[in-house]
Amino acid sequence: MPRYRITIEYHGDGFVGWQRQANGLSVQEALETALERMTGGYTRVQGAGRTDAGVHAAGQVAHFDLPKPWSLSALRDGVNFHLKPARAVVLAVAEVPPGFNARFSATGRRYRYRILNRRTRPVLEAGLVWFIGKPLDEGAMQAAADRLIGRHDFTSFRALHCQAKSPVKTLERLDVARVGEEIHLDVRARSFLHNQVRIFAGTLARVGEGAWTPDDVANALAAKDRATAGPTAPPDGLCLMTVDYPAELEL
Amino acid sequence: MPRYRITIEYHGDGFVGWQRQANGLSVQEALETALERMTGGYTRVQGAGRTDAGVHAAGQVAHFDLPKPWSLSALRDGVNFHLKPARAVVLAVAEVPPGFNARFSATGRRYRYRILNRRTRPVLEAGLVWFIGKPLDEGAMQAAADRLIGRHDFTSFRALHCQAKSPVKTLERLDVARVGEEIHLDVRARSFLHNQVRIFAGTLARVGEGAWTPDDVANALAAKDRATAGPTAPPDGLCLMTVDYPAELEL
Repeated sequence: MPRYRITIEYHGDGFVGWQRQANGLSVQEALETALERMTGGYTRVQGAGRTDAGVHAAGQVAHFDLPKPWSLSALRDGVNFHLKPARAVVLAVAEVPPGFNARFSATGRRYRYRILNRRTRPVLEAGLVWFIGKPLDEGAMQAAADRLIGRHDFTSFRALHCQAKSPVKTLERLDVARVGEEIHLDVRARSFLHNQVRIFAGTLARVGEGAWTPDDVANALAAKDRATAGPTAPPDGLCLMTVDYPAELEL
Repeated sequence: MPRYRITIEYHGDGFVGWQRQANGLSVQEALETALERMTGGYTRVQGAGRTDAGVHAAGQVAHFDLPKPWSLSALRDGVNFHLKPARAVVLAVAEVPPGFNARFSATGRRYRYRILNRRTRPVLEAGLVWFIGKPLDEGAMQAAADRLIGRHDFTSFRALHCQAKSPVKTLERLDVARVGEEIHLDVRARSFLHNQVRIFAGTLARVGEGAWTPDDVANALAAKDRATAGPTAPPDGLCLMTVDYPAELEL
């Protein structure tokens, strides 16, 4: 049974999220259905990260096993043909060793959160950004972000219903950059808690608006209480950019 | 009667084009209707360029006169309120001298044509790019673009129904740049013929695919015959970026 790794782009608006569920089409179900149409049998697709409803991906990764070998380009083109008209596309396919697991082998996940920071609502980028009309101070946001870097108990920055066993994570990067009319939050960690990046965005926006100081953010982290951090920012601005794996898991 | 200049962003999918017409909502009509709702009277809005159906704008410019003075922010926010849910938004408003004319005072127009050049169809940027799956040679495209720079009779590069009196235009810039998975064509001229940028894109794509040489493009220009240039590329990839005006027409 050869194992394949796929890299997937999708628009969050088209799905109830990554994970299969009863209330609508998930990316996982769309992929599994496309694979079933191609191969005639059910194939379970395991993703690297369970993005929420409305969250986008430019480089989600998943793996699955097929009963017999496929040419990589035929697999990519076939899945993409059967995915239509879903707002998802397979960007790349590779064969990987049987030990490769999209979720458990990942050594890092990179997300970008995009804030459109200008006076008027988005049109061309509508659905891909969080719109904040009030000017944001990105320097203050970076100072606050720096207080979150490192290994911490992130209880204040996870959804109340988060199911992770431990709230302790190591945040490797949280870079704040102004790019034209946008502010980009680029984050990297081995893994994240539920809603962690969106709560970072909601909290840093408070700092950017001048309502909170970087010290307030450090205090929220120390409090280990979800009520002390900022709101959960909308999913529109969030995109899973890439997932990293060790080189030895390439074939 | 004070005269106002507005800068507008819009998504081409939402409109039949810039210019008012009977078969659907144009950007001009959307703006005129919004102004009428605000002021109670009809206001004619004159745009810098008549973009076609499906063509986007990040910085279209228009002017209009109002019977009495308005605060600039009230004008911007009011028009934007009444524009909803149309896929257009006023980014900026300025008062300008009575001699300012959005169309005739313009000294330059800049367009960007975006080609998504990867193996698989767009999802996140769907509607904003022209998708070409075959690898394009941007060096050859730039070499061909260089043959178009300058003052020429662009009969080969204008729509058959183009109503401009003269086919002679001066193309100031046509820069080809690879930006990640995209190829951007950045063009600037005082003014353009109908479909000129889209025919440039369709022609340069032929060169990028290796079907045509830069010499073929020079020969097409010399032939002064629309049939000798490439196809008109789809409107999705085209965006009016900015319109330039002389500094003395600022207040």
